[in-house]
Amino acid sequence: MLTNRPKSTVQPGDIALLVSAQKKRYLVQINPEKQLQTHRGVINHADLIGLPWGSKVFSHLGSPYLVLQPSLADMLIDIKRITQIMYPKDIGFILVTMGIGPGMQVLEAGSGSGSLTTALAFAVGPTGRVFSYENRPEMQKLAQKNLVKAGLADQVEFKLRDIQEGFDEENIDALFLDVPNPYDYIVQARRSLKPGGFFGSILPTMNQISLLLIALQREGFSFVEVCEIMLRYYKTVPERLRPTDRMVAHTGYLIFARPVQDPELIEQGPASEEADEGSSGSSLDETFTSIE
Amino acid sequence: MLTNRPKSTVQPGDIALLVSAQKKRYLVQINPEKQLQTHRGVINHADLIGLPWGSKVFSHLGSPYLVLQPSLADMLIDIKRITQIMYPKDIGFILVTMGIGPGMQVLEAGSGSGSLTTALAFAVGPTGRVFSYENRPEMQKLAQKNLVKAGLADQVEFKLRDIQEGFDEENIDALFLDVPNPYDYIVQARRSLKPGGFFGSILPTMNQISLLLIALQREGFSFVEVCEIMLRYYKTVPERLRPTDRMVAHTGYLIFARPVQDPELIEQGPASEEADEGSSGSSLDETFTSIE
Amino acid sequence: MLTNRPKSTVQPGDIALLVSAQKKRYLVQINPEKQLQTHRGVINHADLIGLPWGSKVFSHLGSPYLVLQPSLADMLIDIKRITQIMYPKDIGFILVTMGIGPGMQVLEAGSGSGSLTTALAFAVGPTGRVFSYENRPEMQKLAQKNLVKAGLADQVEFKLRDIQEGFDEENIDALFLDVPNPYDYIVQARRSLKPGGFFGSILPTMNQISLLLIALQREGFSFVEVCEIMLRYYKTVPERLRPTDRMVAHTGYLIFARPVQDPELIEQGPASEEADEGSSGSSLDETFTSIE
Amino acid sequence: MLTNRPKSTVQPGDIALLVSAQKKRYLVQINPEKQLQTHRGVINHADLIGLPWGSKVFSHLGSPYLVLQPSLADMLIDIKRITQIMYPKDIGFILVTMGIGPGMQVLEAGSGSGSLTTALAFAVGPTGRVFSYENRPEMQKLAQKNLVKAGLADQVEFKLRDIQEGFDEENIDALFLDVPNPYDYIVQARRSLKPGGFFGSILPTMNQISLLLIALQREGFSFVEVCEIMLRYYKTVPERLRPTDRMVAHTGYLIFARPVQDPELIEQGPASEEADEGSSGSSLDETFTSIE
Repeated sequence: MLTNRPKSTVQPGDIALLVSAQKKRYLVQINPEKQLQTHRGVINHADLIGLPWGSKVFSHLGSPYLVLQPSLADMLIDIKRITQIMYPKDIGFILVTMGIGPGMQVLEAGSGSGSLTTALAFAVGPTGRVFSYENRPEMQKLAQKNLVKAGLADQVEFKLRDIQEGFDEENIDALFLDVPNPYDYIVQARRSLKPGGFFGSILPTMNQISLLLIALQREGFSFVEVCEIMLRYYKTVPERLRPTDRMVAHTGYLIFARPVQDPELIEQGPASEEADEGSSGSSLDETFTSIE
Repeated sequence: MLTNRPKSTVQPGDIALLVSAQKKRYLVQINPEKQLQTHRGVINHADLIGLPWGSKVFSHLGSPYLVLQPSLADMLIDIKRITQIMYPKDIGFILVTMGIGPGMQVLEAGSGSGSLTTALAFAVGPTGRVFSYENRPEMQKLAQKNLVKAGLADQVEFKLRDIQEGFDEENIDALFLDVPNPYDYIVQARRSLKPGGFFGSILPTMNQISLLLIALQREGFSFVEVCEIMLRYYKTVPERLRPTDRMVAHTGYLIFARPVQDPELIEQGPASEEADEGSSGSSLDETFTSIE
Repeated sequence: MLTNRPKSTVQPGDIALLVSAQKKRYLVQINPEKQLQTHRGVINHADLIGLPWGSKVFSHLGSPYLVLQPSLADMLIDIKRITQIMYPKDIGFILVTMGIGPGMQVLEAGSGSGSLTTALAFAVGPTGRVFSYENRPEMQKLAQKNLVKAGLADQVEFKLRDIQEGFDEENIDALFLDVPNPYDYIVQARRSLKPGGFFGSILPTMNQISLLLIALQREGFSFVEVCEIMLRYYKTVPERLRPTDRMVAHTGYLIFARPVQDPELIEQGPASEEADEGSSGSSLDETFTSIE
Repeated sequence: MLTNRPKSTVQPGDIALLVSAQKKRYLVQINPEKQLQTHRGVINHADLIGLPWGSKVFSHLGSPYLVLQPSLADMLIDIKRITQIMYPKDIGFILVTMGIGPGMQVLEAGSGSGSLTTALAFAVGPTGRVFSYENRPEMQKLAQKNLVKAGLADQVEFKLRDIQEGFDEENIDALFLDVPNPYDYIVQARRSLKPGGFFGSILPTMNQISLLLIALQREGFSFVEVCEIMLRYYKTVPERLRPTDRMVAHTGYLIFARPVQDPELIEQGPASEEADEGSSGSSLDETFTSIE
């Protein structure tokens, strides 16, 4: 299981990532009685056990593979999906911004293919809990299967539900809506969230962002922020440093907010040239905080 | 402590964030015998205890404040610093890319003001461990103080050391060098990292990236990636949606790599138009993975 | 005049840019009987005449200045303004995309402070013509003054008019609406534009873009494109190459379209993964064109 | 010819762009005796003459096409090439920044496929002149052919030459080096440029930028700027406004400089937080200029 720190060698039950010279990737849970069928031959799991992570192994046809411990990003990339999944660039920022870490209780809807579910379960760890709502049975099944494969199913409680009916949980630390119409469920979200808790959503279009902003203002949310994250890779040739030729231009706009007692107290949006850059950006240079 | 899930009301020992109507921020650890001195009056901690998070409170001069549970991003923004600190946009991506979560053992150098240390300690939780090296005593003291204030000091082992001498730990899951010359310590880093473990660094200039790429190739690292993350905020007026006027243009280039048995096996850099966008970007759309 | 190629030395009537060591900038038209009053002393125009461009000169107080021929970008930066002006990054792309060059007849509304007017007048040259509409008299006066100072007034015909009433000109090559509600004047724009001509606009918010897209579709425009241009500067230290710390995050969204006989013929928007990147982006790599 | 303003109808000698419903593009010079062979049938030029621009026409097989006047961007996109060509986003900014307009005398090396040559010839118009150096005969031939097709050859003087030997022209207004090693020709460039003139280059890698910065400093250039332009397209669906999925991540870094009498006078690089954003960016908000 990912959240039990793996040893330096491959062990039964570990999640392993095998990568071919052609960068073909296979994610497997090590089971001494199983085999991995690749396009270039068979690898017995039993032959991997006891090898140091990072080792080179060969299929029965002689094709080489590296055997690696997957990062959370690797897990996310290799998840089985039938829906648009969330990208590591967005997930990392969501976790940090919404304070999601070990021991937290978080709620998401919908489960989708389980990519955000995987990240949330990984981040809250064995002492936390993820409540994941979905109303399409086949989608829930896929998400569950993906979580089992990632060894993270124990942290997650899946619920098959139209979230129009609301959520069972109260006092949730952080709640994320990954649905096309989050603005229809803000009353339900507020009821389930701890006072001052963290609300988040991701939406592909500006029109949806407008509707969500209106709903958040109506339901007494404050500290509203909208942003987008652009990730650009570089070619790794030291004497010819330059970005890659193409990049992902857009995944979605991120939106965050917190329910508070008096949402009017804090002036929303940019109060000044500095604040104009968003709270995180500006405060890093501007704030002098008293820690006593 | 952040990693023990706080209740829905303010309790002694909790870390709380007080925010004024003017967006002035105060980070305090609740102690019934202490007072917070603000520019607009005094607030007794005792008066906060038992209030729901998100409540509005008043100073003795009648100035209103919201009392909030800080997210990791809030903690990072409000950290006391005498060095450049790392931004949430970069930290979130680092955590996800380097597989840093509950129970992991991670190493960083240098401690700096302790911003990355805080994030690492938060992410690995009580069952994990952070080893943080620094060779400037006054810097180490500041980092330690910041970690104590964040309630995360128990997860961190600080070491005062010139890392030229190497690290004490072996078999580390993830190792991050936040120093100006990481290329001088790659041998040491490789020795300390678990085989197949995660190496990361952040550097402001392209010239440093060139030198680090050369060192990583020399020492047998593979899966080398260089990228940068741009974060753009939007004004939150639903009927006038647009980005803010200005933004942070650059914090640093991120670089990741993994030591493996045969670093030549996997072709480095873009193998194709798709791979050209970096492994995370491309694979999301291209990979069909076997999970068995 | 800018459009008569200046000699290699400063001549009466030339537009000159003087820059101090502190980067304070003065734009003047050389007149042998005039003086430039700076914060650091007086410079007689007469003393500049005959000097090679790029020369160093001194004020009567001994402060040094460089005397330079202004580029169009310099003219735009230094224009007197009471409104938001357009940025070189956007203007350059507008000129190239809308085919604006020597001899063209172009129309714009409103004149504003005259920054786009200046660029258009510069680009069409003495053989072209710019028709510039504005309904605020004081704004028109400012634009006129700026064009006279730039030596470009001869190319421009200013009109004081509520453009709701339409434009006098027909068969215009390119028409640019720099007003907050361009969607209210698309019928008028279409009437004035040559068939197949170039329409353009710049708008700060996504909500305005939505309204303009609807109006353009209704009035039979095709080849509709929406884009934004981000410009990032780098510090110019060769051994420490890196972007500047901050940048302009947003000026406006650009939108282009062309009136054609059968706007339904060409499928609007991205037809494929490649087209998805916009016509200019995609076609550069994809198109094989017959030139016979 | 592009620079003689076309009438509102197609005329012999005009450059026309035909676009199919599938967005296949054909660039032709109208000749009453010629035919355009498309994949979907033949179109007689003679049938186009006298039609309004923007008209729909049919091939002999009944396939529809729109007949359009090409913009400069259209010309650039559709140029025949055997080298990397320059993008409209970069070309527009180059023209504006380097003051290139009607009547100017500009020099470029190398000619390449003639894309920048086309833009320069278009911008300087019949009263200007472009000197285009190239040392590969077959490349020069291609560039010449492209310029003839664009109707812009009269403005251009092509020279077959290793530019190590220097340029014939003196007192050039603007000089652009589009070669891999511009740092080897800065002495030659300076000799050919008018004092205070405009130097520019585009380079794909940061390593080349470093070398060019060193050479420019050594040879007495000032006002040095390095920047990059990112262009992002949006899908044009008014009720679902969002960027396209992918974009061009990098074409090249642009670098500009001017030779002056005292290059040390003006402090290079950012002098302040504002200057930090580059001269164009910052000055737009900061400068109050005297025009007298």
